[in-house]
Amino acid sequence: MNKTLVVCSGGLDSVTLAHHIAHQSTQQQAQKQAQELMGLLTFNYGQRHRKEIDCAIACAQRLNVPHHLIDISTLGQSLQSALTSHDEAIPEGHYAADNMASTVVPNRNAIMLTIAFGFADSIGATQVAIAVHGGDHFIYPDCRPEFIEAFATMQQYALGKTPAITLFAPYLTINKGDIAAIAGELSVPIHETWSCYNGGDIHCGRCGTCVERLEAVHHAGITDQTTYADTTFWHQATQKNQPLADQ
Amino acid sequence: MNKTLVVCSGGLDSVTLAHHIAHQSTQQQAQKQAQELMGLLTFNYGQRHRKEIDCAIACAQRLNVPHHLIDISTLGQSLQSALTSHDEAIPEGHYAADNMASTVVPNRNAIMLTIAFGFADSIGATQVAIAVHGGDHFIYPDCRPEFIEAFATMQQYALGKTPAITLFAPYLTINKGDIAAIAGELSVPIHETWSCYNGGDIHCGRCGTCVERLEAVHHAGITDQTTYADTTFWHQATQKNQPLADQ
Repeated sequence: MNKTLVVCSGGLDSVTLAHHIAHQSTQQQAQKQAQELMGLLTFNYGQRHRKEIDCAIACAQRLNVPHHLIDISTLGQSLQSALTSHDEAIPEGHYAADNMASTVVPNRNAIMLTIAFGFADSIGATQVAIAVHGGDHFIYPDCRPEFIEAFATMQQYALGKTPAITLFAPYLTINKGDIAAIAGELSVPIHETWSCYNGGDIHCGRCGTCVERLEAVHHAGITDQTTYADTTFWHQATQKNQPLADQ
Repeated sequence: MNKTLVVCSGGLDSVTLAHHIAHQSTQQQAQKQAQELMGLLTFNYGQRHRKEIDCAIACAQRLNVPHHLIDISTLGQSLQSALTSHDEAIPEGHYAADNMASTVVPNRNAIMLTIAFGFADSIGATQVAIAVHGGDHFIYPDCRPEFIEAFATMQQYALGKTPAITLFAPYLTINKGDIAAIAGELSVPIHETWSCYNGGDIHCGRCGTCVERLEAVHHAGITDQTTYADTTFWHQATQKNQPLADQ
């Protein structure tokens, strides 16, 4: 039986993953092959706002599982990053644009995953699930398949447990548009997920993650009740780059 | 040129490592093969006292390099451990005894190392050095050679840099007695390092790390100006287990 802890930021991808595993769990229980969604784990790493975290908490409530919050915000002060620095301007535009590289926190996924594995071990989980996807590969080295595989191997040795706690990354070879399609199939309330890097009351529609989200929703052809401050910018940004659907 | 960041707890092993690299650096500079000790990195993970951290700061001052402190104490609240819990009694005796397993923080080395690599990347270091040693292997899975190797591989992928930031663990195949001997050769002031798990004003001489330290000093046959509350218990504890020198 897999007891799965989902690393959930409160964004579209990880909220969909949590719903996905909860759905599979229900399906499998009906078939008497028990699987358990043990809970969601969110990191407070010094985000500009709490909306993303609140969306993760809301997701756990919807799925009736515990939500765990681990504060690593002091690390953000030590690791240089436009993402966690409130002084730097957020780059606008498509993720593919060079200026988005400044949003990378050095070693972010490796840091969060090692903590997630330590936490999983503490609560008796047997699997950690993350929502890294194919669209992240070209800008974030710590979202690529070779990293995921090497990380899982490292963790086998680090905890020295048999069986090892496994790393489940089912979206590794699909893109955000495909994830949005899964969200549609599972009726995930995507307007209750948060993607925007800016700290406004509504999604700005212009930052890298907003553009990527709007592309994904368009690609999946699903209904999106999210309110965006700018609903047309994403299309211009996409024109300047490879649209996600064609990657 | 290697620019090395040493992960330094303030204990005997990592302080010796810092002195060791600083010494090699000086030697190599004389030979015009530049190597640089960039600084020391210490984690505040909710230790029972600050003495260990103060010893790391003192080491950096002696070696005239920057000292960096990263606070991960909130993680300690999330990850079960006798080491970071102020409510549990510290086990006495030799590291080999079963009761010492409760001092293992789940995934501790992997967590600290991923943060160290992120920090190294931020400051432009090309190497992270740690003082894990052969004596740690049998109780801590995340001190074993196969972990160190897998971790270094994972980091190559995680940061995606060429050349990769390397992991230097020169004490991996020697024991603490051998490290104490190196400390003796380099005239490291070992009474200015801290090993005791208890929060007293002086080393207790009875906890696992005190016993291990006293064994190591005895094995190396070096002068130790450290004051211990109990100077005989370590020998009884060693009799019950394999002495370090015979491992």
